[in-house]
Amino acid sequence: MNTFDPSLLFRTVDVAGVLANGLLGALVARRMRFDIIGFLFLAILTGLGGGMLRDVLLNTRPVAFTDPLYLAGAVTAAGVGYLLVFKGHWVGRTLTFLDMLALGCWSATGTIKALGYGLDLLPAILLGVLTAVGGGMIRDVVTGRIPVVFGGNTLYASVAIIGAIESLLLTSVGYPNVAMAASIVTCSVLGLLAHRYKWTLPRKGDGG
Amino acid sequence: MNTFDPSLLFRTVDVAGVLANGLLGALVARRMRFDIIGFLFLAILTGLGGGMLRDVLLNTRPVAFTDPLYLAGAVTAAGVGYLLVFKGHWVGRTLTFLDMLALGCWSATGTIKALGYGLDLLPAILLGVLTAVGGGMIRDVVTGRIPVVFGGNTLYASVAIIGAIESLLLTSVGYPNVAMAASIVTCSVLGLLAHRYKWTLPRKGDGG
Amino acid sequence: MNTFDPSLLFRTVDVAGVLANGLLGALVARRMRFDIIGFLFLAILTGLGGGMLRDVLLNTRPVAFTDPLYLAGAVTAAGVGYLLVFKGHWVGRTLTFLDMLALGCWSATGTIKALGYGLDLLPAILLGVLTAVGGGMIRDVVTGRIPVVFGGNTLYASVAIIGAIESLLLTSVGYPNVAMAASIVTCSVLGLLAHRYKWTLPRKGDGG
Repeated sequence: MNTFDPSLLFRTVDVAGVLANGLLGALVARRMRFDIIGFLFLAILTGLGGGMLRDVLLNTRPVAFTDPLYLAGAVTAAGVGYLLVFKGHWVGRTLTFLDMLALGCWSATGTIKALGYGLDLLPAILLGVLTAVGGGMIRDVVTGRIPVVFGGNTLYASVAIIGAIESLLLTSVGYPNVAMAASIVTCSVLGLLAHRYKWTLPRKGDGG
Repeated sequence: MNTFDPSLLFRTVDVAGVLANGLLGALVARRMRFDIIGFLFLAILTGLGGGMLRDVLLNTRPVAFTDPLYLAGAVTAAGVGYLLVFKGHWVGRTLTFLDMLALGCWSATGTIKALGYGLDLLPAILLGVLTAVGGGMIRDVVTGRIPVVFGGNTLYASVAIIGAIESLLLTSVGYPNVAMAASIVTCSVLGLLAHRYKWTLPRKGDGG
Repeated sequence: MNTFDPSLLFRTVDVAGVLANGLLGALVARRMRFDIIGFLFLAILTGLGGGMLRDVLLNTRPVAFTDPLYLAGAVTAAGVGYLLVFKGHWVGRTLTFLDMLALGCWSATGTIKALGYGLDLLPAILLGVLTAVGGGMIRDVVTGRIPVVFGGNTLYASVAIIGAIESLLLTSVGYPNVAMAASIVTCSVLGLLAHRYKWTLPRKGDGG
């Protein structure tokens, strides 16, 4: 009798992603010398903004408001990021690792949810990617920066696109759980390699 | 026989808040030398943006579009702010006073509406605060500034949090009208004191 | 027997508008030296952002996700804008022309759709204008600029207001197709004249 329920694992990854992204938001708040309100807003926007964008565009109530764990996770991240100073190699590495797990998890969740709402292939991929990178984009815009995913950073949104396409294919043939797992593995491996070896996309400018 | 209907009073405060915040938006438009289009957008976004954010996140039609008074109020504020120059102590004081009334009114409205839609405690507080400070945040972002509520200004969002928690408690025990009144009184008194005595939250930065 | 179906013509204008605005977004991406991800986001936000804003505020699923042609058009524009360099008078003129066609088309679409959802006059005009200029506003904000429609550029949002009011009047008396056509003609003629002769609105600042 197999009693393993994969959804518990995915939920753990999901909430770990909210915590990690919330902490990444709090780090930005610290760099900009915000007060606790700024820490709260940045943790909430970074950790939950992508899913909120997806749900608003799907015309459904954001899961960030219906599942109490999400907002609690983001608020916790804000508090921890406010009280503690995160320094050192291993803290950074752990946050990057959790961020990459979340990238794969969220691009899969977004794509699968969009397909469940009857959306076409291209919109489903877009919503998967938006779930994964939307929170960071909002964080960048509200702190007066141009979203880093637009150019110049190591592969991130492009990794989410791969995860979303993978999720789309595996979900279409009837394996949403495999899709989740595959997207998490693919995105974290590719994302960490890109981060480690500084893989970037070429920038296209007036000069080239 | 008591014929006093408190909802009329709350509606007056609400529309006065739209006018005051619309004028505050128009003042920013004047400072940035916008044309009438810029005045209109800033008055609408500042006066109605918080409620729009709340309603979009609650997945319901924004009340700014269903109640004709709201948009008319914001457009009027844009016109008045365009035609007249507001100067002097008393104009500033009146606007600050109305802004603080609106802060309490909107944090209560947002919280109570979110509870009415079945949301949990933490999301209800967040939506109350977002209703109160969201318009100003949007105004700041679209004019290229970092939202002042993130740090460095006198207590504002934190006052809205107090109003929202108060509204939550009083609404849970069955007194939404008392909640509205209490939030308006608390937020305007605390907000004006904070403004007068320059109460701020500590900023948390890499240096401290 | 009249078999002419005006909706095909309007759809052509609509998709041409997505392509033109997507290309205008890609031009900004090129100027800012983004990578392909940045080109995709800017083309999608510029070409489809206005309609997404409208549909989110109307509390309905964005048509950008339900009609596959829209997203395909924006992605195509991103690809073309990434691969080809657009230079010269005639390219600029063609893009400006298509942009002005879209301005009229979208202010009419937005107004008529809002009326169809039972909205009042002022909200319907606002949603018409937002459909027409919202994509450009989002593009400006995410690239760290203050929306050009707020002041200093040639007439654009004000032309959309005229198109929206015209659409409102003609739709109220029962002629939505005439409204579409009239708005497209009015906005493209006025918009191109304003562009050609540099018509602007007066800027209202502390100095005047």
